[in-house]
Amino acid sequence: MVEAVADIGLIGLAVMGQNLILNMNDHGFVVCAYNRTTSKVDSFLENEAKGTNIVGAHSVEELCAKLKRPRKVMLLVKAGSAVDAFIDQLLPFLEKGDIIIDGGNSHFPDSIRRTKELEEKGILFVGSGVSGGEEGARFGPSLMPGGNPAAWESIKPIFQSIAAKAPDGAACCDWVGETGAGHYVKMVHNGIEYGDMQLITEVYQIMLEGLGLTHDEMAEVFAEWNKGELDSFLIEITRDILKYKDTDGEPLVTKIRDTAGQKGTGKWTGIDSLDRGIPVTLIGEAVYSRCLSSLKDERTRASKILKGPSPKFSGDKKAFIAQLGQALYAAKIVSYAQGYMLMRQAAKDYDWKLNNAGIALMWRGGCIIRSAFLGKIRDAYNNNPELENLLFDSFFADATAKAQDAWRNVVAQAVVMGIPTPALSTALNFYDGLRHEMLPANLLQAQRDYFGAHTYERLDAPGKWVHTNWTGRGGNVSASTYDA
Amino acid sequence: MVEAVADIGLIGLAVMGQNLILNMNDHGFVVCAYNRTTSKVDSFLENEAKGTNIVGAHSVEELCAKLKRPRKVMLLVKAGSAVDAFIDQLLPFLEKGDIIIDGGNSHFPDSIRRTKELEEKGILFVGSGVSGGEEGARFGPSLMPGGNPAAWESIKPIFQSIAAKAPDGAACCDWVGETGAGHYVKMVHNGIEYGDMQLITEVYQIMLEGLGLTHDEMAEVFAEWNKGELDSFLIEITRDILKYKDTDGEPLVTKIRDTAGQKGTGKWTGIDSLDRGIPVTLIGEAVYSRCLSSLKDERTRASKILKGPSPKFSGDKKAFIAQLGQALYAAKIVSYAQGYMLMRQAAKDYDWKLNNAGIALMWRGGCIIRSAFLGKIRDAYNNNPELENLLFDSFFADATAKAQDAWRNVVAQAVVMGIPTPALSTALNFYDGLRHEMLPANLLQAQRDYFGAHTYERLDAPGKWVHTNWTGRGGNVSASTYDA
Repeated sequence: MVEAVADIGLIGLAVMGQNLILNMNDHGFVVCAYNRTTSKVDSFLENEAKGTNIVGAHSVEELCAKLKRPRKVMLLVKAGSAVDAFIDQLLPFLEKGDIIIDGGNSHFPDSIRRTKELEEKGILFVGSGVSGGEEGARFGPSLMPGGNPAAWESIKPIFQSIAAKAPDGAACCDWVGETGAGHYVKMVHNGIEYGDMQLITEVYQIMLEGLGLTHDEMAEVFAEWNKGELDSFLIEITRDILKYKDTDGEPLVTKIRDTAGQKGTGKWTGIDSLDRGIPVTLIGEAVYSRCLSSLKDERTRASKILKGPSPKFSGDKKAFIAQLGQALYAAKIVSYAQGYMLMRQAAKDYDWKLNNAGIALMWRGGCIIRSAFLGKIRDAYNNNPELENLLFDSFFADATAKAQDAWRNVVAQAVVMGIPTPALSTALNFYDGLRHEMLPANLLQAQRDYFGAHTYERLDAPGKWVHTNWTGRGGNVSASTYDA
Repeated sequence: MVEAVADIGLIGLAVMGQNLILNMNDHGFVVCAYNRTTSKVDSFLENEAKGTNIVGAHSVEELCAKLKRPRKVMLLVKAGSAVDAFIDQLLPFLEKGDIIIDGGNSHFPDSIRRTKELEEKGILFVGSGVSGGEEGARFGPSLMPGGNPAAWESIKPIFQSIAAKAPDGAACCDWVGETGAGHYVKMVHNGIEYGDMQLITEVYQIMLEGLGLTHDEMAEVFAEWNKGELDSFLIEITRDILKYKDTDGEPLVTKIRDTAGQKGTGKWTGIDSLDRGIPVTLIGEAVYSRCLSSLKDERTRASKILKGPSPKFSGDKKAFIAQLGQALYAAKIVSYAQGYMLMRQAAKDYDWKLNNAGIALMWRGGCIIRSAFLGKIRDAYNNNPELENLLFDSFFADATAKAQDAWRNVVAQAVVMGIPTPALSTALNFYDGLRHEMLPANLLQAQRDYFGAHTYERLDAPGKWVHTNWTGRGGNVSASTYDA
């Protein structure tokens, strides 16, 4: 008879799974490790887990037998069918009230489905975003659990222990919301991460091409920025990366092929935003920028055909670098505002009660986008839980107002120098669009009515849709079935 | 016994269906009209179709009985389940070799599926893009048929007769390609249409807010533009719209609510481009702009909170208007280049042989995006059927080279004036990105390797993926299951 010794089971011994186990062990929890290729279990126990309280299992049945009740099994496996397959394997060895946690990068509709399917079987499902990469998993990730709320009390002690801690000591983990809310918020987090990274690469390229700074000089700029309002993990690691030398003494980053990979969660956010009708333009441009970067051969040929101006900046470099920091900050504010707009809409669509301040706290530490700035977002939503738009909070409204002249100058200069700044630009365009009570979509509606009889609404008669026979020819029938 | 008198049957008597029938009748084809609500059939025959050769049917059975063989039935019904429902209703009354044409705005995956499902039943399916709105349907639409190639010879006489004619007399209709190719190309067409419309609204807003032109003055600008390289349907109708006065003598367009509607095909293009990894940024921004426009109440509140500069232009207005035209032209070239990049990728993904020159011809007349410019695209692909990128064609490379200074100035001025130009800007950013052999995605790859052990490729060792332990801490395991 196998003894139920473990507080939690974990399936999937890739680097993230291993590190989460070691993290749980550090915090006094007994973890039972399992992997489909069971030799990995042995190797893990004999090496990384040697001398710890970690136990292993060579089958799903053994794993479940070793778990205290209610059983808690966390999956750290490839998103998609592997998750469903493991759930199916686990079910015969679980009983009502047991908990399955999916800690992979699952797409939120799957988590919505799994929560409902498992609820019917009496099993409590949790889809949890886990962020922070291998370092985070080992020493404190950001955890974003959602799903069946009945699971939260049982997993809370483990999750909040192993999670990163914000500078004020608060665990970067709280209950996100129902069904797919955890993975949804994680998806938006990843999209925001795409945006943050893209923004940094844009200012890097301006400093490199436009200002002609050396990598060591740029590292200094990032080091400075990291002491102020831009203080964040990504600014910090960029500083380190820019300083890192290859064996020949050259900056290693200059040896890296400029084709960005992507695993899909940024794309999901972009697609979701289009589907939901929310203008999350910065993430969209960040994803497209990765796409363009991957067309390296086509770009190489284009570079020999397409004409551009000289990228050399003439002016006060030091002042311009300060403006770059302001532009980066303002664009980042816009990106987070867009992300929150998207979550607002999803919460409405799925009837989730999202704790906006709590989400900022969960992102505040542990994860890739952790930053001092997120404390300000938490404050904004704590001050006003009904805040309509992050940009309307006085801190952020003031910050963008203060930054905008610099931001405009940076984008205008980049445009003149021919240095692409798709994310900095789209953020500014969004900002200017949002603050326009009147956008030129009236002309667009007139066009649609002209060619497609789509009708339009008059400003002086809200709710009344009319069609104008603009040409005097054609019918007066307005369109119903057709569109363009 | 009902006599088979009709050359084609048409189901769906909304404005598009009615007009297509009248168009076919004008060209000597006998059409049998059917509608689910059969009173519409009677009303159509007694009114719009009075005195024509058009016949009617009050059931699907009667409709099929009245068709010459091989039967050709065209559906002009709401995209989605209604199409499948009518196909199911038709099947008992059709025989092998008969043809079902879906002329609605169906999503291309449905057309791929329907082509295959009906092929198994011996029925030839055609999914045809139909563009041109009510005017086009009546007097010459652009038709983009794809699906089962065996159907083409039978429908070609009707389709090419009723289609719009390019200025050189060529019918704006040719066979697009296999399975879903017709609806795919129509989808991209609609996305491009979103982009063209968005670009026009942006220059409108600059002229209105920045230059302070009256609507009549703007109409003059569009009238001038319509005589040159921008000559197109959308420029022409914009001229007319700007001139059109409301009953009080004010421009009607100023009375229209600035919230753009959308029916989804622009969104589909955006989503498809993200899915396929092709940076179709201009359409993406055009869709997002419609989304932002629809947040009218939020924008109204934002306009009272968010700060911006004065939108007043100081300089040579006439010269700037000429630059606006150049910017519009260059951005439009980029948008079409992006659309063709997307079609190139889809053709690769689905093994379609798309005739790029033919597609430009189909869009050359009849449809909303018809323009002189499309003749140049047809020429480019006729000159070089293997053309990698539209921007690499000497005509378009020269045109963008010539326009770029003006384009840069327009975007920079708009940024400084605080007038949003998301589409003009993203096109320029894409242009500058494409012509960069080296983009800053090397830094992005370094970041991904730093925090997620994603590995990167070295420029001097293509195909070899390496991981650097940037911190000296953490493991040397590279990531497999995880991403960020």
